[in-house]
Amino acid sequence: MATLTHPTRLKTTLFGGARIPTPKSRPGPFRVRMSLQESGPSIAVVGVTGAVGQEFLSVLHDRDFPYRSIKMLASKRSAGQKVSFEGQNYVVEELTRDSFDGVEIALFSAGGSISKEFGPIAVERGTIVVDNSSAFRMQDGVPLVVPEVNPEAMEGIKAGKGKGALIANPNCSTIICLMAATPLHRHSKVKRMVVSTYQAASGAGAAAMRELELQTHEVLEGKPVTCEIFQRQYAFNLFSHNSAVLPNGYNEEEMKLVKETRKIWNDKDVKVTATCIRVPVMRAHAESVNLEFEKPLDEDTARDILKKAPGVVVIDDRSSNNFPTPLEVSNKDDVAVGRIRRDVSQEGNYGLDIFVCGDQIRKGAALNAVQIAEMLL
Amino acid sequence: MATLTHPTRLKTTLFGGARIPTPKSRPGPFRVRMSLQESGPSIAVVGVTGAVGQEFLSVLHDRDFPYRSIKMLASKRSAGQKVSFEGQNYVVEELTRDSFDGVEIALFSAGGSISKEFGPIAVERGTIVVDNSSAFRMQDGVPLVVPEVNPEAMEGIKAGKGKGALIANPNCSTIICLMAATPLHRHSKVKRMVVSTYQAASGAGAAAMRELELQTHEVLEGKPVTCEIFQRQYAFNLFSHNSAVLPNGYNEEEMKLVKETRKIWNDKDVKVTATCIRVPVMRAHAESVNLEFEKPLDEDTARDILKKAPGVVVIDDRSSNNFPTPLEVSNKDDVAVGRIRRDVSQEGNYGLDIFVCGDQIRKGAALNAVQIAEMLL
Repeated sequence: MATLTHPTRLKTTLFGGARIPTPKSRPGPFRVRMSLQESGPSIAVVGVTGAVGQEFLSVLHDRDFPYRSIKMLASKRSAGQKVSFEGQNYVVEELTRDSFDGVEIALFSAGGSISKEFGPIAVERGTIVVDNSSAFRMQDGVPLVVPEVNPEAMEGIKAGKGKGALIANPNCSTIICLMAATPLHRHSKVKRMVVSTYQAASGAGAAAMRELELQTHEVLEGKPVTCEIFQRQYAFNLFSHNSAVLPNGYNEEEMKLVKETRKIWNDKDVKVTATCIRVPVMRAHAESVNLEFEKPLDEDTARDILKKAPGVVVIDDRSSNNFPTPLEVSNKDDVAVGRIRRDVSQEGNYGLDIFVCGDQIRKGAALNAVQIAEMLL
Repeated sequence: MATLTHPTRLKTTLFGGARIPTPKSRPGPFRVRMSLQESGPSIAVVGVTGAVGQEFLSVLHDRDFPYRSIKMLASKRSAGQKVSFEGQNYVVEELTRDSFDGVEIALFSAGGSISKEFGPIAVERGTIVVDNSSAFRMQDGVPLVVPEVNPEAMEGIKAGKGKGALIANPNCSTIICLMAATPLHRHSKVKRMVVSTYQAASGAGAAAMRELELQTHEVLEGKPVTCEIFQRQYAFNLFSHNSAVLPNGYNEEEMKLVKETRKIWNDKDVKVTATCIRVPVMRAHAESVNLEFEKPLDEDTARDILKKAPGVVVIDDRSSNNFPTPLEVSNKDDVAVGRIRRDVSQEGNYGLDIFVCGDQIRKGAALNAVQIAEMLL
């Protein structure tokens, strides 16, 4: 039985027969064309051996992100591992208080407790931290940014050139939802959103992806399933998101969607409810989103708005039943939107239903963080 | 590579390591205790070789349904196959115009076109047809029945003893949703429901279940996937429900939820919207349901109401993150409800979010039909 030991093998093994749509070319403001190792900032990747850490490298490469030097940082456990990147070999260094000397931009994805401990240390040394954890997202004064959605939130930091600062990358579900909802919200203010998610294994890290694959082998062979990451069978099953359930009955993942949307949209009044579910899919999330608007927005206008939105691709062919799927957006930058239709449960054109898919590791994490870093160049 | 050729093997292969909750004992009005082959009606099962047809037999047996004789009917292609049931061997007979002579109750699950052709023929011969297809569901004068929800819809047929009649079994998603929503609706009228489904392979039949399993083998082995039932990869993926998309942008499955709810609740005003998605799960559906009520209904009252509801089991343990999963309800009669919480996007106690799981083949199809038949005894 072949088991996977590295998330990059999942890409080839688990996306075998997928139809891969042609990615929309995106010559937008975030595309950096040069890759001069002499001219860019000095950067660091914290948590470089994790699923998102590896994707940071992949995205930095794909986007020709310019850097003068790059540090590969991780926990003591991973220190000493070798990483090859853009023709150079690096040794993963242990993350310490002194790691950030001379580092201008650090991309963090090593979990909330590492961010809480080392984020402020890095800022003190003058580093701008783009943090993928939830540690600082709701903290006043820390911008929570999706570059296509609220680039204006970065202005204070761009003005304070050379100073250290924290910038938070929103939660994957929030990014993917708002990539689709924001262009519509700009046209006809969203009053209320009801979101149900179909979340991939990758959100729980590379080990969860491996567990899903291992369990699937086990189930097909009639063996008992190995449950190390989740407390229940994941293969051929689904379950309520594994984050802690809060006193109000929502889990943390759901409340991120509720609260982060308010902060990103700078709108305390927007009403959001969410039900977050893990499904046996590898690395892209899907979301069913019901929207209530203040002003009418018909489905044709909505489709036109979404077709023009940067970072969004519309897949909405009713006649051939062709709509977004997680597999199609896997390893892709764009968030795909389809099933765009007038909500028959609301009066006139005050409601829409849409279905959104986005790569959790890429736009839901690494790509968005690198886009933020690009805004600092 | 072991491939499955019969859906019953899926039960043991694909539900291997599942936690199986203790089923709630149900000494309700539909429990029939005798199984006297001399005293019951003469019955027929139409489409006996399909996934639901096989489950009809399993449910008839489990519930000691009394019958004087039983006919196993299917298409010409399946005629001649042998079926063993309750210690007797039967040969599957080809369905013809003369199949219903002397048959008092026929359980149909052979697709809409077979129902449309042979349902009226059976009724003419005096047979009461309980039809699992969508052929007659919205037809005036045909009761659309979930026994726990609207038993009163059967009264006309029970009064017309001895006469042939059509009774429609609702769509699986509708049954599972309304099993949970109706007890709440009776307390504080539901004004609007926003439903997102997570639907299993079984809804597309035994061949779809086999395709999901075969594809999963193929993906794990890095081979191209076999797409015969669906036009896209199903393993480690999900997609918008494969039913036809109507001019209003909803697919047929979604409009069943919208329209059948109105008929079953006898409430033309209830607003429903739905997004129906197929997920790589074998035989039980899940549904995320957002409810808006006319009168306040707090979550504790809702939980108490659901705990007392027949055919419903509440699994709602926030501290251990234990909520319903499709695997847990597979091969079970009860519909499981959890994630019961006040909707933070609505004022006061006018909204609730719930998560529902139910076995698509059992309560979503065969069990509900047999329960209807029991009401005729």
